[in-house]
Amino acid sequence: MTFLRKTSISWVEAEKITLRGRRIEELMGNRSYGDVLFLLLIGKSPTPEQSRMLEAIVVSVIDHGVTPPSTIAAVTVANTGGGLSSAVAAGILAINKYHGGAVEDAMAAIGEAVELQRTEGLDAKPAAEKLVSRYKDNGRRISGFGHRFHAADPRTIRLFELARELKIAGPFIEQAEVLEKVLTEKTGKNLPINADGAIAACLLEMNFPPKIANGIFIIARVAGLVAHAVEEQEKNPPMRTVDAGNYEFE
Amino acid sequence: MTFLRKTSISWVEAEKITLRGRRIEELMGNRSYGDVLFLLLIGKSPTPEQSRMLEAIVVSVIDHGVTPPSTIAAVTVANTGGGLSSAVAAGILAINKYHGGAVEDAMAAIGEAVELQRTEGLDAKPAAEKLVSRYKDNGRRISGFGHRFHAADPRTIRLFELARELKIAGPFIEQAEVLEKVLTEKTGKNLPINADGAIAACLLEMNFPPKIANGIFIIARVAGLVAHAVEEQEKNPPMRTVDAGNYEFE
Amino acid sequence: MTFLRKTSISWVEAEKITLRGRRIEELMGNRSYGDVLFLLLIGKSPTPEQSRMLEAIVVSVIDHGVTPPSTIAAVTVANTGGGLSSAVAAGILAINKYHGGAVEDAMAAIGEAVELQRTEGLDAKPAAEKLVSRYKDNGRRISGFGHRFHAADPRTIRLFELARELKIAGPFIEQAEVLEKVLTEKTGKNLPINADGAIAACLLEMNFPPKIANGIFIIARVAGLVAHAVEEQEKNPPMRTVDAGNYEFE
Amino acid sequence: MTFLRKTSISWVEAEKITLRGRRIEELMGNRSYGDVLFLLLIGKSPTPEQSRMLEAIVVSVIDHGVTPPSTIAAVTVANTGGGLSSAVAAGILAINKYHGGAVEDAMAAIGEAVELQRTEGLDAKPAAEKLVSRYKDNGRRISGFGHRFHAADPRTIRLFELARELKIAGPFIEQAEVLEKVLTEKTGKNLPINADGAIAACLLEMNFPPKIANGIFIIARVAGLVAHAVEEQEKNPPMRTVDAGNYEFE
Repeated sequence: MTFLRKTSISWVEAEKITLRGRRIEELMGNRSYGDVLFLLLIGKSPTPEQSRMLEAIVVSVIDHGVTPPSTIAAVTVANTGGGLSSAVAAGILAINKYHGGAVEDAMAAIGEAVELQRTEGLDAKPAAEKLVSRYKDNGRRISGFGHRFHAADPRTIRLFELARELKIAGPFIEQAEVLEKVLTEKTGKNLPINADGAIAACLLEMNFPPKIANGIFIIARVAGLVAHAVEEQEKNPPMRTVDAGNYEFE
Repeated sequence: MTFLRKTSISWVEAEKITLRGRRIEELMGNRSYGDVLFLLLIGKSPTPEQSRMLEAIVVSVIDHGVTPPSTIAAVTVANTGGGLSSAVAAGILAINKYHGGAVEDAMAAIGEAVELQRTEGLDAKPAAEKLVSRYKDNGRRISGFGHRFHAADPRTIRLFELARELKIAGPFIEQAEVLEKVLTEKTGKNLPINADGAIAACLLEMNFPPKIANGIFIIARVAGLVAHAVEEQEKNPPMRTVDAGNYEFE
Repeated sequence: MTFLRKTSISWVEAEKITLRGRRIEELMGNRSYGDVLFLLLIGKSPTPEQSRMLEAIVVSVIDHGVTPPSTIAAVTVANTGGGLSSAVAAGILAINKYHGGAVEDAMAAIGEAVELQRTEGLDAKPAAEKLVSRYKDNGRRISGFGHRFHAADPRTIRLFELARELKIAGPFIEQAEVLEKVLTEKTGKNLPINADGAIAACLLEMNFPPKIANGIFIIARVAGLVAHAVEEQEKNPPMRTVDAGNYEFE
Repeated sequence: MTFLRKTSISWVEAEKITLRGRRIEELMGNRSYGDVLFLLLIGKSPTPEQSRMLEAIVVSVIDHGVTPPSTIAAVTVANTGGGLSSAVAAGILAINKYHGGAVEDAMAAIGEAVELQRTEGLDAKPAAEKLVSRYKDNGRRISGFGHRFHAADPRTIRLFELARELKIAGPFIEQAEVLEKVLTEKTGKNLPINADGAIAACLLEMNFPPKIANGIFIIARVAGLVAHAVEEQEKNPPMRTVDAGNYEFE
């Protein structure tokens, strides 16, 4: 019970708030959201390119219409008279392995394939094939590929384009693209790199710790959840069954 | 049961994601987080000054050390072996009237005082005095003033400075400053404008709808909650009682 | 910060757990769930009739099919790979003013009408009429009446029958029944006493404090939420859109 | 998207609510909470002994003072002005692997040892020794043993006593007791069977499916969370830091 916790994130004293060693008032208005988010999560300042890349990642998954389970959960709670924090919390609870929570697992898979390149002297294609076999043998699924709606995910295309423009792209993005081809060949199904997979490749290029990866999706999507929950509270009468197939865009 | 919901926020079709009428890939990497957040929440693009102001607001409350109830709830859940989305959701559930959830109420109070200026031809000081009396007569507390730790909130000082620099400051910020003085005079207690109150005044200057106001705090703070929850999962052994008085900054 | 919290609910020391002054091992196996729940919530032991009434109340709302928002939220989260506590928590977040959270408000309304009987010497019918007018004048809705599915709620019928059998029924149940008639007359709509309203009347007869009332619904329904979440995890493939209109009973 | 969900739990039509094939009004007042909970979770009616055992299990973990993380999370949220469902949901989010969520894992371990008795013709002691070695070799911890406060858990003692009295006790409870001795011998630490472990053994004796096991703890504890959250809302001023070491029983 006398265990002393330690933190290196932030510290507050009277009239003084520091974030990773910087005074909050020096960050406000002087640094972009991408700068401060990178600093908060990683503990050091990003390059301008990394900051812009991180903001693009956040924007890519800031919202995705009315059908994701997180939006359904948030809107369902908003419709019962719950407060905004209740609705948003319910939405976040739906961000798990099968929805927005595959970034960490996708980082592990892509990272393992790149590691195979290095340790076994393989090119990206044989490394991808070896990884796919390994996962298959262990009865595991590679995260970050395939989407319910998109045969090619517009967010992936733009993220990789931007990563190349910013000179951030490297072996992880290349490996992800080759993995997509190998998976599609081997399974006969269209398994495009989805937003989770694309974010995973970009975070690997920026050397992000995998433990924080799923947090990026949560941080991004909370803005969309707030927007949908407030719209529901304002527009719709209470206790109408939320039905994902019964929406109209106006 | 055949009720048709409508949304004007976002829409998804195969290979196409639109946000308030814009394609997501046009926003990614081309628009700042502040631009996209403003667009998502309000439905139109901000001026460059509004965008920078909104980012500064988000940065101002992105984190606040280990003692806020939202951080305690998130860390408590992270310490029991809960997943990241569980820990963050528990943290968000603590954002309510007495913690981060007073922005909407503070907007109502400051807005009412400015309205008194207009309708009764009063200056800011008599308007503040009339508002304070009105609230007192109704047994209500004016939200957005007073802080457990800060005799003067460094975030408020910087937000108002920036609002002036960006030419966003107007009657609402002036009214908030006068309200602080009147409240301190009348109560004999030091009741500085806190972050909720300062954000309220800045949002009023940018004509933000009050219903979305508390959402801004949630959107900002989720990043801090992710950072604290991940740190807890990585550093601390499970089932140590979380105790806000027993932290050390390293 | 040196504020000392007090509790009168339970206390734990090495090898000793007490609940409202009783050792936990004396309660286990010797007292029914209704006995212990009453003791825990109210601080004293119930009569055998009160205990049986409370268990019937809990059973009445222990589950209600696949369409309530709490079930939809729980199943939605379970379907994304969330843990059981995440799914159940999301379900509970949907228990609010318009779903399961109207017991306290219904107690206030029925209690006010019975108070009108006493203070103004009125019979139940004129008291109901006065209450309905009062609410209408204030633009308020009387909670606990009307249901999406049931023209007459089978739970209400059985709860009141049992209350009479157990000699618990008194002025509050009578008042609730008269209110139903008056509301239906005045509005021309069928507004049967729903489960929230029936529970409210029964809790008033047992002198329950209103502040705990909505908790009874939460305590009861959590069992149904667990059942639905586990069924979803076991039976259904992940990321199928949860759709309340698309269920089949097997 | 046209996926048809199936449920076998409950079904609702106009004026008709069925639970596992029984009309709700036939259960209310005629069957105990233990009867209905068993029926709801398992799909069939229990014997009177099983019903009494299940109620004793629920009572055993209905509350445990002010220090469990679930109580801290619930009280923390209640203290910020959150509604009752928010506070209870935050508490439930803290029920995970290291707090209340070890029943399923403990069932797996105890069940595996009993299976070793059968398949390898071992007595309980060598089966326990083999299991402990197996877990050690795999770097795994056996769940359900050890407690922060109790050198001997009064709930375990009473649950096993009752199981013997009700003729429910069999090989699983015996195996759990032998496991406790072997673990203590091998580790040199006192590792008493805790409530999670005792509940696991009792549920195994009643042939409960492991997938529902952690749900029993959640169902039980929600009553304690409601009691603590309501007490906090009524007694304590808002925004006092919740501190588990700073409570007094009154």
